[in-house]
Amino acid sequence: MFTLTVREHIMIAHSFRGAVFGPAQKLHGATYLVDVEFRRTELDADGLVIDIGLASQALKKVLEPLNYRNLDELPDFAGQNTTTEFMAKALFDRLAGRIAEGELGEAAKGLNGLKVTLWESHIAWAAFEGALPA
Amino acid sequence: MFTLTVREHIMIAHSFRGAVFGPAQKLHGATYLVDVEFRRTELDADGLVIDIGLASQALKKVLEPLNYRNLDELPDFAGQNTTTEFMAKALFDRLAGRIAEGELGEAAKGLNGLKVTLWESHIAWAAFEGALPA
Amino acid sequence: MFTLTVREHIMIAHSFRGAVFGPAQKLHGATYLVDVEFRRTELDADGLVIDIGLASQALKKVLEPLNYRNLDELPDFAGQNTTTEFMAKALFDRLAGRIAEGELGEAAKGLNGLKVTLWESHIAWAAFEGALPA
Amino acid sequence: MFTLTVREHIMIAHSFRGAVFGPAQKLHGATYLVDVEFRRTELDADGLVIDIGLASQALKKVLEPLNYRNLDELPDFAGQNTTTEFMAKALFDRLAGRIAEGELGEAAKGLNGLKVTLWESHIAWAAFEGALPA
Amino acid sequence: MFTLTVREHIMIAHSFRGAVFGPAQKLHGATYLVDVEFRRTELDADGLVIDIGLASQALKKVLEPLNYRNLDELPDFAGQNTTTEFMAKALFDRLAGRIAEGELGEAAKGLNGLKVTLWESHIAWAAFEGALPA
Amino acid sequence: MFTLTVREHIMIAHSFRGAVFGPAQKLHGATYLVDVEFRRTELDADGLVIDIGLASQALKKVLEPLNYRNLDELPDFAGQNTTTEFMAKALFDRLAGRIAEGELGEAAKGLNGLKVTLWESHIAWAAFEGALPA
Repeated sequence: MFTLTVREHIMIAHSFRGAVFGPAQKLHGATYLVDVEFRRTELDADGLVIDIGLASQALKKVLEPLNYRNLDELPDFAGQNTTTEFMAKALFDRLAGRIAEGELGEAAKGLNGLKVTLWESHIAWAAFEGALPA
Repeated sequence: MFTLTVREHIMIAHSFRGAVFGPAQKLHGATYLVDVEFRRTELDADGLVIDIGLASQALKKVLEPLNYRNLDELPDFAGQNTTTEFMAKALFDRLAGRIAEGELGEAAKGLNGLKVTLWESHIAWAAFEGALPA
Repeated sequence: MFTLTVREHIMIAHSFRGAVFGPAQKLHGATYLVDVEFRRTELDADGLVIDIGLASQALKKVLEPLNYRNLDELPDFAGQNTTTEFMAKALFDRLAGRIAEGELGEAAKGLNGLKVTLWESHIAWAAFEGALPA
Repeated sequence: MFTLTVREHIMIAHSFRGAVFGPAQKLHGATYLVDVEFRRTELDADGLVIDIGLASQALKKVLEPLNYRNLDELPDFAGQNTTTEFMAKALFDRLAGRIAEGELGEAAKGLNGLKVTLWESHIAWAAFEGALPA
Repeated sequence: MFTLTVREHIMIAHSFRGAVFGPAQKLHGATYLVDVEFRRTELDADGLVIDIGLASQALKKVLEPLNYRNLDELPDFAGQNTTTEFMAKALFDRLAGRIAEGELGEAAKGLNGLKVTLWESHIAWAAFEGALPA
Repeated sequence: MFTLTVREHIMIAHSFRGAVFGPAQKLHGATYLVDVEFRRTELDADGLVIDIGLASQALKKVLEPLNYRNLDELPDFAGQNTTTEFMAKALFDRLAGRIAEGELGEAAKGLNGLKVTLWESHIAWAAFEGALPA
């Protein structure tokens, strides 16, 4: 298997509901480093997993509505604890949607899977990985 | 699959037996960065892989009897080369035991697997990963 | 000159006022990695710049009232843009105060200076450094 | 599964052909950090995934003909875009060959797989992973 | 003193002349991580060392004519060994020029100094630092 | 000022005497990442701070008698707490000696200063910096 990974970041505010979250129930925030790993079994005709320019552009578009925002106020996440692991899945779904719609180009249809990792600090990070529909 | 990873570290002394180890047969030591990745297929009711507070606490308890110690003197490792890869498995087993005993909470019973990575320097690291009993 | 540095982190929310801040005028947040460098010209009697245990404890106490908080709501920062560089200075002042009060021990009176660095992401960080009163 | 990973680096020049590469069609270069992960299901008699000395030596030998070179001029890569993902596979194949020839020792025949990761910058990296013949 | 640092990168080819350079006399390349530290003694009216948006834009403009290029072919560096330390100074000079011309805004005239660090790998880096004219 | 920095590492065992050290009074160990920064005001005739080959070689020679050793048993450190900050100075002195003896070449006599940084973990490091005799 081949993979290509690109890194971006966002800066968000949010709060959590539930005693399990302790002091993180208060409004606070995070810098999330966002690593997206694109996976495929064979390289495309140019010797690539994915056009890195289109990949970065798609990732920026997916992050843009979240960056410099309070996630508690976004309708998409209403009633949801926007934990790091939940956000990894949310970003996975949004990227998978853009790939399916052809936004990353024809070649991107050869992708088999994605992994989205969010670093919330130098000592804690979460990820979601899964297959893409053939 | 979802994962959550936390990082800790320990500072230990040890020595190895066997010509393959060359100068590392002498008593020396290491700072091990310890990354523990918790894995599960579905998030729990709070939107979590694991309560990060309980996870960090369990990891600290597992590391505590090793930290600031000479591993050559610990009965558990008698007659054993405490290589980085061996120690990754030893920490995996101890954490798996604590999860089975319920120390990381009821929700932790939904965990499917663990990966323990030990960094012995900026240019070498080892890991053990495996499934947890259902 | 000798230095010793310790790293901690906090997760905060805040917003900025002023057109120069662009989208960061909205409520957002950050994970700040906080590196505190302690400086002195001669080591103390134990061969130390500072007792690392007392240093970490003092840093945690200084960070605790900021961690998991919305800085916009803290009276100390009322009417202030809590930029990364401003926060570096605020932490410097608070640590210098604790050193002066003797909280880091007698030996800490031999410290000559401090540098506080705050990483807001993997691609941007700010610092404040200065002398300590003799 | 157990893994052991070692890190090296090379500094190379190259250029790409194809409009998809944009400005990278011009002759430029890269520092590649090269991480090689060795995989096996059981440790060998010394408690090792692989003799780290032999592993590092083999990796250096594989990198040596590429280091400080213009990849465009190497006959092995004639007519080939030496993308990061392509180079990960090329290094995988060369290491797998050396393992099969016994250069990493008898014990290395117990290896099940390899993963080669090449970092082209702090924000982009590629990898190839696969099984080794039994 | 206050500082703010931003990180970018470029990918270049070059070669060196002189026996001291050994194998690096051949055409090869590098990924340079470029860290630019802006220094001033007092924050500006917005609580900033420098408008990070303008700073990043100026850095990108300074790097653009070097990125994806063979430095051996650039007239500005004719007859010059473009070592990492030399390039740090070259970037310092170009940034200092843009600050003097007002491209980073009026407030940037309060800057006292710059430090430019170029990482050529995870184990080697070089820097040039100096004062800015008042 | 120009600087060039190279990174190496050692793995040592040691123990400390004095209640201030708490659990570190027991025999333990550390991986020290060792960064040596060479400083000079003007580049040499080759456009270098220092011949990086000679610099790395000298650093390896200085580290070799410490690597894979128990520092408690080395006569040079008898009766001494080999703290991270103390070791930074010890390495500074040994490197300065080799520079004075001409081991890093004639050009190295133009060096003005050194900084030696030892990372004992991802969250703690110490350094010693000073001038070199003209």
